[in-house]
Amino acid sequence: MNAVVDYINVHRDRYVEELKQYLAIPSISAQPEHAGDVRRTAEWTADALRAAGMENVKLLETPGNPVVYADWLNAPGKPTILFYGHYDVQPVDPVELWTTPPFEATVRDGEIYARGSADDKGQVFMHIKAIEAHLKQGGSLPCNIRFFVEGEEEVGSVHLDEFVRDHKQDLSADVVVISDTPMFDRGVPSICYALRGLAYFQIDVRGTKSDLHSGAFGGAVANPAMVLAHVLSQMKDRGGRIKIPGFYDDVRPLTDAERAEWKKLPFNETRYRKELGAPKLFGESGYSTLERVWARPTFDVNGLRSGFTGEGAKTVLPATAMAKVSMRLVPDQDPQKIGDLFEAYLRKICPKTVELKITRMHGGNPWMTEFDNKFVRAAGRAIEQGFGKTPVFNREGGSIPVMATFQRELGIPGVLFGVGLPDENAHAPDEKLDLGNFHNGIIASAFLYQEIANTN
Amino acid sequence: MNAVVDYINVHRDRYVEELKQYLAIPSISAQPEHAGDVRRTAEWTADALRAAGMENVKLLETPGNPVVYADWLNAPGKPTILFYGHYDVQPVDPVELWTTPPFEATVRDGEIYARGSADDKGQVFMHIKAIEAHLKQGGSLPCNIRFFVEGEEEVGSVHLDEFVRDHKQDLSADVVVISDTPMFDRGVPSICYALRGLAYFQIDVRGTKSDLHSGAFGGAVANPAMVLAHVLSQMKDRGGRIKIPGFYDDVRPLTDAERAEWKKLPFNETRYRKELGAPKLFGESGYSTLERVWARPTFDVNGLRSGFTGEGAKTVLPATAMAKVSMRLVPDQDPQKIGDLFEAYLRKICPKTVELKITRMHGGNPWMTEFDNKFVRAAGRAIEQGFGKTPVFNREGGSIPVMATFQRELGIPGVLFGVGLPDENAHAPDEKLDLGNFHNGIIASAFLYQEIANTN
Repeated sequence: MNAVVDYINVHRDRYVEELKQYLAIPSISAQPEHAGDVRRTAEWTADALRAAGMENVKLLETPGNPVVYADWLNAPGKPTILFYGHYDVQPVDPVELWTTPPFEATVRDGEIYARGSADDKGQVFMHIKAIEAHLKQGGSLPCNIRFFVEGEEEVGSVHLDEFVRDHKQDLSADVVVISDTPMFDRGVPSICYALRGLAYFQIDVRGTKSDLHSGAFGGAVANPAMVLAHVLSQMKDRGGRIKIPGFYDDVRPLTDAERAEWKKLPFNETRYRKELGAPKLFGESGYSTLERVWARPTFDVNGLRSGFTGEGAKTVLPATAMAKVSMRLVPDQDPQKIGDLFEAYLRKICPKTVELKITRMHGGNPWMTEFDNKFVRAAGRAIEQGFGKTPVFNREGGSIPVMATFQRELGIPGVLFGVGLPDENAHAPDEKLDLGNFHNGIIASAFLYQEIANTN
Repeated sequence: MNAVVDYINVHRDRYVEELKQYLAIPSISAQPEHAGDVRRTAEWTADALRAAGMENVKLLETPGNPVVYADWLNAPGKPTILFYGHYDVQPVDPVELWTTPPFEATVRDGEIYARGSADDKGQVFMHIKAIEAHLKQGGSLPCNIRFFVEGEEEVGSVHLDEFVRDHKQDLSADVVVISDTPMFDRGVPSICYALRGLAYFQIDVRGTKSDLHSGAFGGAVANPAMVLAHVLSQMKDRGGRIKIPGFYDDVRPLTDAERAEWKKLPFNETRYRKELGAPKLFGESGYSTLERVWARPTFDVNGLRSGFTGEGAKTVLPATAMAKVSMRLVPDQDPQKIGDLFEAYLRKICPKTVELKITRMHGGNPWMTEFDNKFVRAAGRAIEQGFGKTPVFNREGGSIPVMATFQRELGIPGVLFGVGLPDENAHAPDEKLDLGNFHNGIIASAFLYQEIANTN
């Protein structure tokens, strides 16, 4: 591995120059006028994989943007990594808030600024360069690798599920690796091993066929907004615990090892509260803030609408009231089952004075690879070798639906091996990637393949 | 009185023809382009009062539209009526929904269709014609009358309070009479003796300085929409009783006589429920629907807004949540005191996890003249003579702020002596007044002056 690391160090500047070219193509998947750029970026990615020494490099067509596929499967008996990333990027508006043009990558203070630098071209390119170092230096990789880079992640990966189902053979592997997340904090590299899922609903309550005058009719009929407040207030007790019967049945408890690991994290609750501008933090009693966000399910209102909401006063009894609500789910909760429990509870507590309509919006499974999974631990050792620091093992509160897809369709564990930073501005102006992290990330990726090879 | 009634019967058709002229002038106070029409209507009203034989007829200027004043004060020792009405009308949009043009009064099936027919020119004109009958037939009125017709009722009577304060001498009287309300139902004439007041608020709850991602932060902070639901749900108990401490302290209980009177009313609760399209009626336990709407205070949400309310799903933790809420008040509740009680309770139950802002919007005092007040009873006898039917004595759930103004500034009781109908379309296309009611209303008005004269 010393020779591989030397190679990476020697070619450091070239890697940055090549990355700049990659970042120069505006592969904005949400904007049809960039369709040509998107395809050009797929081809650029394929060329880079070919140049690195990968085999079977090809574009696989989908009903949308093509998938870039490549593999190197010449390590019989060794594990196979499925690397997943995306070459498409977010739109750049408001473009006037960028310090330098989003598609003219610019280095300032050790960070490279460009759309796609962190999310996700920079991190995809990090792996391509780690592969190149192995193949150019030693002629082989320590394990088998399949590369799968899609072009529709920023538009909801609309064709991904179908693609994975149709290409199970091409994608068969022992572990999925994704580098598309930030680390815990600057100087605190991390491996994320679990994500929350989601169950999202719209609740519509109707009291009367039309809005009524609150003087002429106030007192005679149930107010749908009051009914809505009533049912929402019954979703949680005073300790922040969700009251839907059976809701917690499938929640995997936090282990002592996880709680101990997270207690060590440099997490400043006062700073966190002040950054959010919250008078006080609040959550389920018995858990710390990180535990609440990473490992406990939630019930939140995402939107409310009823009656008159303009300036001034209108004495109206609203006919209807609407809420968007969602639950973040944790392993092993199932969005379908949670939806059933929620619906049954809501129907039970909602008074018969109103019509109740419940619409199931999108949902997603939580994802988890065991805290002590051998690939997770291997990734930790690789990070330590790349960054000179033991990483923290954390979860995230959000969702990456593709992780659940891979788990469901391919039945394999996954590792989130991200080198972005929390202030990377992934979907905002001045997106950036720390070049130190990029460089260390290439070394860590090179070690990752070695460490995964060593797991059996 | 026989001669007066004969006069009214003989001139029936002429009265309708004159009313048509009155209704032809588009006195829309809300639309500046009709300013000339508004003044022309004031002058027309003054001319009609002069022609009827009233004295001291004049336009009194205000910062807005003029008040038409007239009096006849030649019955020493007899009570003085202050008649209040308005000569301005609502806009006519959507004008395409009118069967005939709004300012070309048209008679169909015994009803006269025109903007202002019921609200309020038709009912003002009814009194002018009753006065004419008395003065032309007998040369005198049985009591003293001051006539006060304003031109800004449809734009909130913006200058009325000040005008009344500045003209207490000119308006001094023993009782206010207003004919600007519908009767209980077709064929069910009524005298309204009480109205509800209002206290209206906006509640703003802020959880964080900006919207947050529900995955990344869900569980860590209080959700302002959930907090809002929580506090709103604590405003009423399951029996529909308002939980604000002290809220009911000043509520004047319904008397047995009132409850007995209302039980006799032809009120079909099933029809009422179906017309509103409500699955079930709901209100404070221990009271009938009419009692709830007329004689009991309410707490209602008039509007709700928080977070994302568009199509689809957005996983946002809203930074803020807003509710408009209002309470209909009954005698002797005071909007200011109720506001203090509400604010104290809300501050007490609102958790410290959010910033709470309470804005007091408009309020209005409830109004009541005692159920057995001598003028109310006199009005009842007058209605009986005009319509051949004992009227019902009812309250209304809405507010007529001017009633509270007269009560506060002049300290006199009031009588709502209206001959409109619930389907009169007062602020809608095809506004109409039943000509039978108009004619009977003139006779009843003529008797009203006599009956009020007889009260001492």
